[in-house]
Amino acid sequence: MPRFNKIAFVASETKEAERALKKLVKLYGDTPPGKANAIVALGGDGLMLQTIHRHLNSRIPIYGMNRGSVGFLLNDYRENGLKERLAKAEISVIHPLRMTAHDKNGTKHEALAINEVSLFRQIYQAAKLRIAVDGKVRMDELICDGVLISTPAGSTAYNLSAHGPILPIKAPLLALTPISPFRPRRWRGALLPNNAQVTIEVLEPDKRPVSAVADHIEFRDVVLVEVKEESGVDIFMMFDPGHTLAERILAEQFGF
Amino acid sequence: MPRFNKIAFVASETKEAERALKKLVKLYGDTPPGKANAIVALGGDGLMLQTIHRHLNSRIPIYGMNRGSVGFLLNDYRENGLKERLAKAEISVIHPLRMTAHDKNGTKHEALAINEVSLFRQIYQAAKLRIAVDGKVRMDELICDGVLISTPAGSTAYNLSAHGPILPIKAPLLALTPISPFRPRRWRGALLPNNAQVTIEVLEPDKRPVSAVADHIEFRDVVLVEVKEESGVDIFMMFDPGHTLAERILAEQFGF
Amino acid sequence: MPRFNKIAFVASETKEAERALKKLVKLYGDTPPGKANAIVALGGDGLMLQTIHRHLNSRIPIYGMNRGSVGFLLNDYRENGLKERLAKAEISVIHPLRMTAHDKNGTKHEALAINEVSLFRQIYQAAKLRIAVDGKVRMDELICDGVLISTPAGSTAYNLSAHGPILPIKAPLLALTPISPFRPRRWRGALLPNNAQVTIEVLEPDKRPVSAVADHIEFRDVVLVEVKEESGVDIFMMFDPGHTLAERILAEQFGF
Amino acid sequence: MPRFNKIAFVASETKEAERALKKLVKLYGDTPPGKANAIVALGGDGLMLQTIHRHLNSRIPIYGMNRGSVGFLLNDYRENGLKERLAKAEISVIHPLRMTAHDKNGTKHEALAINEVSLFRQIYQAAKLRIAVDGKVRMDELICDGVLISTPAGSTAYNLSAHGPILPIKAPLLALTPISPFRPRRWRGALLPNNAQVTIEVLEPDKRPVSAVADHIEFRDVVLVEVKEESGVDIFMMFDPGHTLAERILAEQFGF
Repeated sequence: MPRFNKIAFVASETKEAERALKKLVKLYGDTPPGKANAIVALGGDGLMLQTIHRHLNSRIPIYGMNRGSVGFLLNDYRENGLKERLAKAEISVIHPLRMTAHDKNGTKHEALAINEVSLFRQIYQAAKLRIAVDGKVRMDELICDGVLISTPAGSTAYNLSAHGPILPIKAPLLALTPISPFRPRRWRGALLPNNAQVTIEVLEPDKRPVSAVADHIEFRDVVLVEVKEESGVDIFMMFDPGHTLAERILAEQFGF
Repeated sequence: MPRFNKIAFVASETKEAERALKKLVKLYGDTPPGKANAIVALGGDGLMLQTIHRHLNSRIPIYGMNRGSVGFLLNDYRENGLKERLAKAEISVIHPLRMTAHDKNGTKHEALAINEVSLFRQIYQAAKLRIAVDGKVRMDELICDGVLISTPAGSTAYNLSAHGPILPIKAPLLALTPISPFRPRRWRGALLPNNAQVTIEVLEPDKRPVSAVADHIEFRDVVLVEVKEESGVDIFMMFDPGHTLAERILAEQFGF
Repeated sequence: MPRFNKIAFVASETKEAERALKKLVKLYGDTPPGKANAIVALGGDGLMLQTIHRHLNSRIPIYGMNRGSVGFLLNDYRENGLKERLAKAEISVIHPLRMTAHDKNGTKHEALAINEVSLFRQIYQAAKLRIAVDGKVRMDELICDGVLISTPAGSTAYNLSAHGPILPIKAPLLALTPISPFRPRRWRGALLPNNAQVTIEVLEPDKRPVSAVADHIEFRDVVLVEVKEESGVDIFMMFDPGHTLAERILAEQFGF
Repeated sequence: MPRFNKIAFVASETKEAERALKKLVKLYGDTPPGKANAIVALGGDGLMLQTIHRHLNSRIPIYGMNRGSVGFLLNDYRENGLKERLAKAEISVIHPLRMTAHDKNGTKHEALAINEVSLFRQIYQAAKLRIAVDGKVRMDELICDGVLISTPAGSTAYNLSAHGPILPIKAPLLALTPISPFRPRRWRGALLPNNAQVTIEVLEPDKRPVSAVADHIEFRDVVLVEVKEESGVDIFMMFDPGHTLAERILAEQFGF
């Protein structure tokens, strides 16, 4: 008897995804997420991230099927044998980052990030940032477009674009990667232990406004941002055997 | 008899620059820019760029002296012998870029840039850009933080931060450099002949708003940007012998 | 009447190239190189470079057709209409580099390079090099695997592998690019005017033996190497319209 | 009572190191390594690596003091209070890589490496390598100057020169980094779990001879090389508090 017999479906708002939704619901029924033992997400990586965010504390495993343009976190789309695939799937457990951002009005914002927390200049003025790790200032003044802290799962996303290294999914590391560093010019970032706490202070925030983003959740005009792995939150992603996240990241490292 | 006997002074609004201004005006007098045969700018590279912008069509040579934190375009500060230094200075002639930016309201903006024209995402959504060179689309879709076109004079500035190459001051080239390219991931940009016309179309501008910046002049919500060297405008910068812009850029190439 | 009616053929020693040679000689005859007005090379980039080297001072234009695995310098292979293609071809004129290498026995070696001159450590000991440009030492001591000087035509070859920039074919520049720089660690090389003379001194040559290579011509145990564009030698390469070297390099810059 | 009271000294063959040796032996005596409970190495990183290699299986801790030009693995030189410094030192335990290299004559060579194992072309012909990880071919054909596998301790050395990332000393990772990759051109290497076994096959070894190097131990004309962390060998390096290897690597990551 398959382990995952009550499936909740979610889909992107594209025609392709909605058509798939209809077919699959017809074949397998649709359980409300609160009573399901698996969520199947139909779309691209964006939907997958959204779905993870929506069910962050539910501990319910999520299986994505590719009905979008980019599918790094997703399995191949097939209609048949879904319950068998779920039963055989390997589960990757990852932890999000917790971002605590204080804005210039004194408001405190919290958000979790699966991929990365990034800080970014809001206007043409370069950001001026001070970076501390575990309470010790390591970079007194970084003039840049921004900076990001990435999990291994996110290391192939924005981090890679900003010339950061791809991390194996099980590496107990975070990547701290500058975005267009102007001074120091040739700083390439740092790999930090996954229990590091990174604190970023925005210098001259009136002249140089900066926003902070946890995956796609953006807060404007921040002045202080703290980032730390949230080891208390487990995220369960399901992948067909031989196509786990570890394997995908390894394959991505040998892609070019 | 020194060639540059009528000097107009400008200074940054820092104490250090204003103190220098007072001393130098006392020593050499102060001529209104319209009647001067040289402008002396006291501050950092920012002031130097501003001063060049303010006098772009005047053909008056500009001599910067360093009273700020960054002085790539500047000569050493000294109070004595200024007229003799001006008389002996070597003059670098450079051309700006002309940016023509159309925004989503149909307004057309023009600006000149000494260093670079850059396009940049305004919010967390990555920019999606189409790039044509001389009317031929060369990059159908670049998903990125942004892109910039740099002159040789600007190649050690933002361009270098975005991992673009430093260009010798006399190289008849422009650097087209992506900022955090997400797709294609490993695109490193292109060096183009200095007579190339670059056209950048902003795709999905409502979802993915982009601003365009010529040096420090910013226009928000642009949809189409054209960039071309403005060979009709000559900018004259003065440098002490052995410290010309060509020499500085060469030295910067061997710095690290 | 076609301009190129006396063709000399050369071919790689692969079956594919030799078969092509037979067919084409049957169709168009085979003129000795000394009496031909065009050489057609059948193979890959390696053969093309060899053919250019063999006929460096002959001023005879060379048209390559791809019968090998890599064909950056080559036209598509077709058997029909060769004379018409030659008549319509566009000719790129490039200049080689002249390398003068002195070895530890006092012997002086000269060679020309179409792509690049490179210096490289011979054993596990890192090379220690001093680099001067136009007689002025610009890098007092570079500890590295090696260094190379590339023409624009060669900038997509070894230079690109060593993380140097691609140069437009008409840019009057040479790329000086370090290979695995150890100290200074983050030096990225320099773009130099094409009339620059680069002199590289090998330090501690007994402990740290270094070889010098002009394209594929290697001299071992060198102690001093001078490199300069040889503007007196013109190389004529023929390309089908729309597929010139300039266009190929431009396309390569937008490839990824 | 200090824990390290029987000290064996070793020194580089420089005047500076030999002078230090004399003074320290006078102050603290000199115990044969077999009976010592600490080795103090006077020189640079090269001597430190040599000393570690010489005492690899002795489990005796090694404390380096800087009497050479490069001192990443070394403590500051001071003559007084040596026993107290040893007693207070923090000990970093690292593991070497074991390289097993087979050459074209069928001879098998073994060596350990503290920093890295590298493969490198011996002549102008680029190396052609096939790379497998844990028995699975991940890179079918890499045309390059070479490739290296680095430990975290070695990640600031040759690996960094070849554009590989710096690894925190405790990261359970190895860096696999290409040296001037020609095809695939833009491959940046991969981070692998520290229990990965890397197998590198040299293709066309007659045309393209390759040497393999474990730190400074070189074997020529290899055809197959296996690399694996040797977790059975513990190396004990001693550092003054606040200057541990972990701290140094972290500091290096924020240096530029």
